[in-house]
Amino acid sequence: MAKSFQLTLLGTSAAVPYKNRYLAGQVLMVGNQSFLIDCGEATQFRFKDWGIKTSKIEQIFISHLHGDHCFGIFGVLTSMAMMGREHPLSIYTPKGLEEMVTAVFKATYYSSPFPIHFFEIEPTGLTTQNAPIFENKNLTVHAVPLNHRIPTVGYVFREKPSLRNIRPEKIAELNLSFDDIRAVKSGADFTNTEGVVFPNAELTIDPTPPRSFAYCSDTAFEPSIAPFIKSVDLLYHEATFMQNMAEHAQKVGHSTAEEAAQIAKMAGVGRLIIGHYSSRYDDLLPLLAEAKNVFENTVLGIDGEMYSV
Amino acid sequence: MAKSFQLTLLGTSAAVPYKNRYLAGQVLMVGNQSFLIDCGEATQFRFKDWGIKTSKIEQIFISHLHGDHCFGIFGVLTSMAMMGREHPLSIYTPKGLEEMVTAVFKATYYSSPFPIHFFEIEPTGLTTQNAPIFENKNLTVHAVPLNHRIPTVGYVFREKPSLRNIRPEKIAELNLSFDDIRAVKSGADFTNTEGVVFPNAELTIDPTPPRSFAYCSDTAFEPSIAPFIKSVDLLYHEATFMQNMAEHAQKVGHSTAEEAAQIAKMAGVGRLIIGHYSSRYDDLLPLLAEAKNVFENTVLGIDGEMYSV
Repeated sequence: MAKSFQLTLLGTSAAVPYKNRYLAGQVLMVGNQSFLIDCGEATQFRFKDWGIKTSKIEQIFISHLHGDHCFGIFGVLTSMAMMGREHPLSIYTPKGLEEMVTAVFKATYYSSPFPIHFFEIEPTGLTTQNAPIFENKNLTVHAVPLNHRIPTVGYVFREKPSLRNIRPEKIAELNLSFDDIRAVKSGADFTNTEGVVFPNAELTIDPTPPRSFAYCSDTAFEPSIAPFIKSVDLLYHEATFMQNMAEHAQKVGHSTAEEAAQIAKMAGVGRLIIGHYSSRYDDLLPLLAEAKNVFENTVLGIDGEMYSV
Repeated sequence: MAKSFQLTLLGTSAAVPYKNRYLAGQVLMVGNQSFLIDCGEATQFRFKDWGIKTSKIEQIFISHLHGDHCFGIFGVLTSMAMMGREHPLSIYTPKGLEEMVTAVFKATYYSSPFPIHFFEIEPTGLTTQNAPIFENKNLTVHAVPLNHRIPTVGYVFREKPSLRNIRPEKIAELNLSFDDIRAVKSGADFTNTEGVVFPNAELTIDPTPPRSFAYCSDTAFEPSIAPFIKSVDLLYHEATFMQNMAEHAQKVGHSTAEEAAQIAKMAGVGRLIIGHYSSRYDDLLPLLAEAKNVFENTVLGIDGEMYSV
């Protein structure tokens, strides 16, 4: 069975909490690994609400240093320690978070019992040709320069292509060695000792296609984002306002639901999740309708919902 | 009608949130004024949950700079601004909070649109003879040195004695001037133009007795607290553990439920509220029973509950 590739939204409100909508934060789970993306105040409360295990988080990605995206970091880090964490944590973030965390730790007489490594991302000058900012055996993460009032980056998570799945019965039938299996999974044909060739297509089935997710929040409408997030299966794009507030949205570095859908369409993504709603909107269905009008495969981001690819 | 004197608990968990128990924070409402005492992460979420209006808060009192008592301050301050606050705010706190808030504001490109005044309280050397750290026309607030791992203060709120209540019918009957009324409310007899003396007791009724509340968290068992909080109507005293963990409690600068009750008894308070429970206790009734065994008029602190004097 293919491993899971699942996004859980922890908060979908912009700027201030609103009713059941908490502040920015989401967890991407890929198999046994969890990636935390943004960390608004009360993120650790959401971990408890939705059963997120912080022990599985080894990387945190922060988009920008407005409080609604990062004020939860102090509680997350100190609570990880109280739960006995010893293994290291890496945080990818625009400049400033390390200084802030250091100052808060100092004032609160705190020192982390586990190593925290900060990696500063500078959005200026990033291109689609840049190397990943993070990579492990399963996936890569690239940074995307967003268009907000302060340095802000989005993140694109792309699985690496899997090896082909070998048909289990062929292993015994052809008496394949470990080396043979490795070669066949990589796409090679197999030739037995009598010189008979078994084409790869007879021995294997297609692997799960690599899956991908992009996080774009906060940002004004910015078409230059599209090539960075091209064809991702799942895109979370902020939709703070509706289109009748497009001018205001532009001025404050935010997008409308329609603009989020335009980006989804330009980038040819599979599915769009909108979120980061202004607290002026109690009913979100008009935002959904506006987005769907441009990009049909749009869903509302809802706190606590999980979205699988 | 006497004005309200009411405490609302925002969070009763120690160190980490536990189920419905949030982190340290409470609001004392005296008439139209609200005082925020401690400010754990997600305090602003509790304001929304329990309908607390931040516009009525002009003073915040922080006991100490462990994260579970102060990590909510960033969200409270920035959300106050987003709600249009312009009037000043005063924060009474042990040293370090201003530096921390300044560093966080700087890193997050934020400057407060309303003035924030920090008043540093140094617990060492405080005596019962110290002047109040805050005073307005209705009440005084005194600081109490607590016994925790880092500099920590409790706070005692005491109403000033009210003027006597004049019997309304006497004003017309004796044709009292404003000056007469002021004198009578202060306790004077009244002598009319014919030289007839009307004793004060005939003209007035007793005012509401001054009410008082003390906040003591976090602290190890510390009998020297008792004279500072003598005879308060309501005492909130931490009870992180039960008595079978007294040795551990002492070591980490916390109290047991029994010890909280002993302090209440020594100080001769009216009613004790226990709180700041370790997340090891799911059922709190054993803590209540332990405390009541020493001090009968004890109640469990519960998130969202209001306690009136």
